[in-house]
Formats: sequence, C-alpha cells, structure tokens
Amino acid sequence: MNDDSTRGWFSGGGRDTSQLDLGQGQLVTPRREAQLATAERPVPVGHDTVQVDREMFASDRVPSPAVATGDRTPDPLADTGSVDVSGVRLRSVEQHLDEILGAVPQPAPIELAVLDAQGLLCAELVTSSRALPAFDQAGLDGYAVRSADTTTATVEVPTVLAVVGETTAGSAETTAIGPGLAQKVAVGAMLPAGADVVVPAAWTDQGLARVQVYAALAPGSYVRRIGDDVSPGDTAVQIGTPIGPAQISLLAAVGRERVAVRPRPRIAVLCAGDELVDVGATVGPGQQVDVNSYALAAAARDAGAEAYRGGILPNDRRRMVELIEGQSLRSDVVLIAGTFATGAPDVLQEALDELGGLSFTQVAMHPGPVHAFGTLGPTGVPVICVPGEPVAALVAFEVFVRPAIRLMLGKRQLFRRTVQAVSAQQLLSPLGYRQYLHGQVMRHPDGGYVVEPIGDGDQAMLARMARANCLIVVDEDVTEVSAGGLVTVMPMLLGG
Amino acid sequence: MNDDSTRGWFSGGGRDTSQLDLGQGQLVTPRREAQLATAERPVPVGHDTVQVDREMFASDRVPSPAVATGDRTPDPLADTGSVDVSGVRLRSVEQHLDEILGAVPQPAPIELAVLDAQGLLCAELVTSSRALPAFDQAGLDGYAVRSADTTTATVEVPTVLAVVGETTAGSAETTAIGPGLAQKVAVGAMLPAGADVVVPAAWTDQGLARVQVYAALAPGSYVRRIGDDVSPGDTAVQIGTPIGPAQISLLAAVGRERVAVRPRPRIAVLCAGDELVDVGATVGPGQQVDVNSYALAAAARDAGAEAYRGGILPNDRRRMVELIEGQSLRSDVVLIAGTFATGAPDVLQEALDELGGLSFTQVAMHPGPVHAFGTLGPTGVPVICVPGEPVAALVAFEVFVRPAIRLMLGKRQLFRRTVQAVSAQQLLSPLGYRQYLHGQVMRHPDGGYVVEPIGDGDQAMLARMARANCLIVVDEDVTEVSAGGLVTVMPMLLGG
Repeated sequence: MNDDSTRGWFSGGGRDTSQLDLGQGQLVTPRREAQLATAERPVPVGHDTVQVDREMFASDRVPSPAVATGDRTPDPLADTGSVDVSGVRLRSVEQHLDEILGAVPQPAPIELAVLDAQGLLCAELVTSSRALPAFDQAGLDGYAVRSADTTTATVEVPTVLAVVGETTAGSAETTAIGPGLAQKVAVGAMLPAGADVVVPAAWTDQGLARVQVYAALAPGSYVRRIGDDVSPGDTAVQIGTPIGPAQISLLAAVGRERVAVRPRPRIAVLCAGDELVDVGATVGPGQQVDVNSYALAAAARDAGAEAYRGGILPNDRRRMVELIEGQSLRSDVVLIAGTFATGAPDVLQEALDELGGLSFTQVAMHPGPVHAFGTLGPTGVPVICVPGEPVAALVAFEVFVRPAIRLMLGKRQLFRRTVQAVSAQQLLSPLGYRQYLHGQVMRHPDGGYVVEPIGDGDQAMLARMARANCLIVVDEDVTEVSAGGLVTVMPMLLGG
Repeated sequence: MNDDSTRGWFSGGGRDTSQLDLGQGQLVTPRREAQLATAERPVPVGHDTVQVDREMFASDRVPSPAVATGDRTPDPLADTGSVDVSGVRLRSVEQHLDEILGAVPQPAPIELAVLDAQGLLCAELVTSSRALPAFDQAGLDGYAVRSADTTTATVEVPTVLAVVGETTAGSAETTAIGPGLAQKVAVGAMLPAGADVVVPAAWTDQGLARVQVYAALAPGSYVRRIGDDVSPGDTAVQIGTPIGPAQISLLAAVGRERVAVRPRPRIAVLCAGDELVDVGATVGPGQQVDVNSYALAAAARDAGAEAYRGGILPNDRRRMVELIEGQSLRSDVVLIAGTFATGAPDVLQEALDELGGLSFTQVAMHPGPVHAFGTLGPTGVPVICVPGEPVAALVAFEVFVRPAIRLMLGKRQLFRRTVQAVSAQQLLSPLGYRQYLHGQVMRHPDGGYVVEPIGDGDQAMLARMARANCLIVVDEDVTEVSAGGLVTVMPMLLGG
C-alpha cells in the first residue's frame, strides 16, 4: 500500500485482495472470503510491462470502471499518470456534484392554478388585498351585545336584554343594536353594529324574546375582528414557502386563483447501449432490458421533476446526436444512462464528443465511477451521463441528479437526511473511493439504528436493491467498518 | 366539575372559565387572560331553565359546535340527555374513525403501466419468467479463462494463455474457449462456454495476443451466473410492496410493462354554505370565499388520492341531492365541508336527511366537533362531512380522511408518526375533548423536540395555520399542560 509502484488503475501491484474485492464491487462476505482463501492471493508485481500497458490502453479507450475501482491512489494531483488516462480525470464526488449544481439552470417562475401549485415553492410575495376575517363576526354561537350593557351582570342579578332578531353565517344584511338590545348570532355571522362582544349562549338563559346575561365580558370577547388573521397589505405567502394544503387554503381566502411558483424541471431520460432492448421485446442472447429509462424517470418524478422517458437511443452516431440535441431543446436537463466506458468503439461516447462541451470523468465512487457532464446548445442545457449498470445508475441519480432537481425546484434542503447506524456486519471499502452500498436500516430496540448490507455488493443485483431501504455511505478514507461500528446511512424514503 | 348539573352542552353551570375558553377554541394566552381578568368571571348556574332550553334547541337544530365544546361530559352513555340532542350523539374520535375506516371500500386492483404505478402498492405477486442475469457474464473487465488452467499462476511464474478474441456487452455471439485459451471480456459480456472465471485485467499483463495471468482464482470468481439475482419463478415484487424506482427497475428487468396496483381512491370534494362564493368572485358583505374545496382537494392529493374539486354545492335541496348523488356514482368517497350545524334551516342537513343513511355526530374533539358520516347508494359510497370552518376542516381531514385514504391505498401505516415534545407554553384544554392545536415543532439543542402553539387557538386563523408544521394533540383527560411539560405532536410533513 505504501509502494508507489502500485499506483494506477492498470497496475496489478501491492494490493490487498479483500480491498480489491470491494474495489470490484464485491463486498467481502464469508462466502467470498472462503472463495478467496482457496485461491492463491495475488502478490505485488513490479515488472516493466506496466508502462507499456498503460500506453496501450490509453491509446484506444478509457479505463473500465470495474478495473478503475482497483485504484488505490485517487489523488487527482498524483503524478503517476493514473488519474488522467484518455482524458478521464479522477475527481471527488463533491467536485463532480459541484460542477453539476453550478451548471443547472434556475427555471423561470410560472403561474399555476393554486391546486396545481401543490408541492412547489412559491415564487412571489403574495400579499393580501383583503382583510381576513372580512368583517367583524361572532366567534361562537351566542348573543351579540354591547359590553357596556353587561358590566353588572352576574348569575344572581342577570342583565336582561331585549332580543332583536337573529343573524346566521352568510347573511349579507347589516344590522345594528342599540343600548339594552341583544342579537342572537351564529358563529361566523356578521356582528351587528353597536355590539362589541358575543356572550356565549351557555352564559345566558338562551331566551328568544328577552335574554338573561349571567356574566360581564371585556369588550371584544368572542368577537373575530376584521383583519385579525390577515390585514390588507399583509404577506400571505412568502417567496420560497412550499405550497401545501394550508397555503392553498390561505391563497384561496385572499382571493388568489393562481400563484407564481418554481416549476418542476423537465428532464428527458434516455439510455444508450447496443445490448439494450425495450421492456416488451423478446430478449435475445447477450441482450439486456432497458430498465434505466424507467427507473430513472421514476426516480426523477419522485424527486419532483417532470420526467419524459425517451427510451433507448438508436445505436447510430448521427441519429443519436440529433435525438440528444432535440431533447436538449425541450428539457431543462438531459439525463443519459449508458455503458459508455466499456467496449469500443462506443457510439454514445462518439456522439457526445460530436455534440461537444461534455467531458468524461472518473469519479472516486463505487459503484459506477465513470460519469460525464457538460452543457449543450446556446442556453447551456445540462447533460448528465450516469453509468448504464442499473444499480449504479440509481446510486448516481441519488448522489448527483436528485440534488440538482431539488436545486431547480428551489428547495433549501438538497440532500437526504443521513443518520449514523451500527453496522450489523463488517464492511470493507476501497481506499480513496466513496462506497454506496444498499442496505436495510431499522431502529434498534435500545435506540439508534442498525443497518445490514443487502447482498454482496455486486452492482447487478436488482432484486436485492429492491429490498433495500437505505444507502450505506462509506467514506473515501475508510477501508473497513467493523461489525458494531458506526456508519453513515441515507434512508431512501420515497418522496422524502 | 363534579356537579352533575353541569352536564350537557346547553348548561351554563360549574365550569372554569379558562377551560371554557379552550372549549370555545380560544387558547388562553396572556392577552386573553388579561381580558378575562377585567371581566367578572361567570359563576355556576343552577336554575331550572336548563331543561326548557334544551327542548327549545332540540326542536329546531343541532347544537352548535362552539357551544357544544363547553360540554364537560363526553360519555356517550351518560343518561343526562346531553349526548343525544336532535339525533346528535357525542362520541370519541376513535369511535368516529372506526366507523369511517370500517366503511371505506377497498377499490379493486387496476393494471397500470409501470411508470404510472409509482407510489402505489403492488396488488399482485409478480414472479419472474426470466433469469436475471439472463446469461453467465463477466462481472468486470478482464479475461475469461478456465480456472483449471490457472491453478499454479503466480506473479513469479505467471500462466500464459492465448487470447482468442474479445467480447463486449451486448454481443449476441456465443463463443467458447478450450484449454490454454483466454478471451478478453468487458463487464456484462457473455461468458464464453468453457470459461468459469474472469481474471481482472489488473491481475494480468493485459496482453492482446497472449496474456500472462498472475493469480489463481476459485471457479466462479468475477462471474455473474445466470439467475444469481432472480431465477425463473422467483418472486420479483410481493403483494403490498410500494412501487418505487427500484421496484420499477426490477419490474422492467423481468419484462413487465404493466403491473396490478391498488388504485388511488377517487374523492369528490364539495362544500356547502349559503355564505360561500368562489375564489375568483367578489366577496360581498357577510360572504366567505370557498377555501375548503381547494384545501381539502390539496390535502387529499397529498394523502395519495385522486381528488376532484366539485366546488360549492347549490343552496337548493333538490339540486344539492342530485349533485351529491351524481358524485357518489363516480367516486370512491364523497367529502363535504359544511357549516351544517349552525343556522336554520340548513339546506345541507335537509339534503343529507333526504339522501338517507347519514347520521350527524358530535365528536369529542376540538376544533369542529360536528361531523356526519354515512354511505350512499347500492355500493355504499362513504360520504364524510367535516366542519365548514377551514381550520377545523383540515384538522378533521388529518384525523379522519387521511387515514381512510391510506387504508384504501393499502398502506400499512395509516397514521402520521407522532413525537413527544416539550411544550414551550402552558396549554389548556377542555376536559373530555381531544384538542388539536396548530404549532411549530423544532428540535431542541439538547435533544428531543420543543413545540410552540401558533396563535391563540381560534379556529378562523388561516395565516397562523399556514405557519404551523405540526398538530399538538391534547388528550381528552388532560385539561392543562404546563410550560415545560410533554405533549404529543404530529409533524405534518407534506407527502409524509
């Protein structure tokens, strides 16, 4: 590990097999350990072919993500050449995320009907031109009276007032009472002029023609004054407030049918790969079903975007370029899943090269270190390329795309909440790579959380991913978390 | 409080003013306390008019919710008559909720395109007719070899194999290798027949014509075997599993374009009240904007329903009956907000009487104790009536309608999570009534939660409700929570 000759993804030297296993996306489980024990472990290599090999590989393709994860020295400034092969730079998760977040557009606010604004952030300062309540009204059922008339009222010596009519909620009739008079009022009914208090029915004899009042009340008691809730000119909804049922209630009350909000970003979801066939098709030998355009569209919707599933890109450079360009004209973001780092010649890579402005990046993460990002066209529409392997694609979505969508939505909290959990098993992780493992997190009976990794970390395991409720995040500088040790966990609640 | 003569909503006797304030929906704040201090407090009343009053009120209307909250004896079996006035029974929140949950239909599963199934619960046992992976494939980039050929391989004495071709992912060509041969493979590429292991490129000299292998590997290493993830006949998605991006990924992988799910219940949202005008209209004297059909439709959507905002019911019994009947034919649930307990004659109440099968209920809760529930038509469509006062309507939605929607969706967790929080203020609550107060809950720097009630508890306060992030729940048997005391809090996260 301290031997400089071990640097570089193409080097076979100096690595510890258990770490290599993780680098390859295989969590070391007892089964795997047993397997390795039966095999002779590789030992350090220090021969001269390393240099030759590097040039050979550099000349025709980028390093494969799988092999690249064997790299032990992710320092992008390292001078070994291992971090810049065929234009692929190794960078940290944060660097890549920063580039994406720095480039996503801020879609202009749009005005929507209040019900369609639900779940979005208010993009205007909504002030009320109305008072709420709009008029003085009874706060409960009782008798509207003049407080001055009841100052001596007690149970023993009730004040007796003449009842002049009754007002129900919704009555438009403006009424008035003079000294010695009371009016029967229902909750929400307009208070008659002259009255300044509502005596609860329970504090009277509830008479019809005359009423006995048993208590004196301070002026204003049980009266909802005009503007008590909102005065004209008051702010009803602030910029940046999420619009929920209570805000919709208030917006309607101040008379707003429409409101300006941060719109849902429109995301085109595409995938590329010669091996891909659509879900309904017969899957021939060597072929794979396109699951990414479905899964990523679902994840994008869950994150709050308007997702358009564009499906599988044609495996022809010219048509691929046209299609990506076309999508970039009608989307805020183009998201492409592709196995663009393995196999040669790679049509997607050629198409992206032709489109220009996109750079491939080796990100120090696992699964799926090969990413690409750039902007297209005069308005600089971001194009985010994530690995084509379905588990790696959804992990990349969590790490890079979901925060970008939330930023476009105007949310303050871009990232999922994380918790510290006790790992129920030993976890091994490649040095220099941030590893994301699917797991099941549960509350521990004694408090806190316990997390169990699901499967052996192989990226291809969709059924196992579907049983997960969290991602376990093992930092770059951690190579081992012992059973019982603390680890960072990101619960993946839908819609959360 | 122990005086039996104080029983009954219409009785003025034996109550403590601070509790009455809460009973009327007014939290006792310092301002309110000061107000009360200046007024002479009502004292117990024990005169004979109570009986007369009860009959008078019973003859023409149900008790108003506001006055009713003054009731101190919510026991529905109490023989004082106070719990059955004009057919209105006082019952616990649980009793009313149980009636609703017992009556809501279980909509039949529907088949949806997988992307439209997002967020819903799977209603079929999805088994795979395919194996995943569909074929033995390379788990990483390297060389497919026969493990038997490499048993003696070390760095010092590498095994040298002849490289016969290269396979990339998606290639449909089935190949084979014999003893002494190797094939260059990319991750995901079909494994050639005869090979049982993939040697990572890093453990070789990465030769093109001949390759030196530096390590022996156990059979199966770095090979994804057919069916490792899912075998034909395996369960892919269980009944009752929420469909998220990972499930959509798996469903697509096993070839499913459509899946049977529990559908979103269709809820018609109506409101009634002579005082109501639509949000765009000019609000005349005594009129109120219809905020409930908006706010409740938003809340129903947030809970997972398909909400249809029917708007304001015409204030005419015949047309109202027709409209409610019409909605019940095309909805799973009809939700009506109405101030149906105050004012006489009440058109909504008459309409519901004509429709039959609905009973008005006084629920021991605050705000908004007057509710109605019943079923309509041959299929027994539930009709839920909540109070028309907008704050009470949203509280009633939380307590009764959201759990019903979640039950129809098939969710296991019907209720929001609650937490215990330290109350930053004294809270007073009427005995026998479960009080729901809007509040702001925040994490305490020393751990746990602190909650602050918002406003003075007056139901009419929409702007204050819009600032809340939780409901504070004060149980029926609690009349006071001192500042610093623990109280139950229901955080109201959107979508949560």
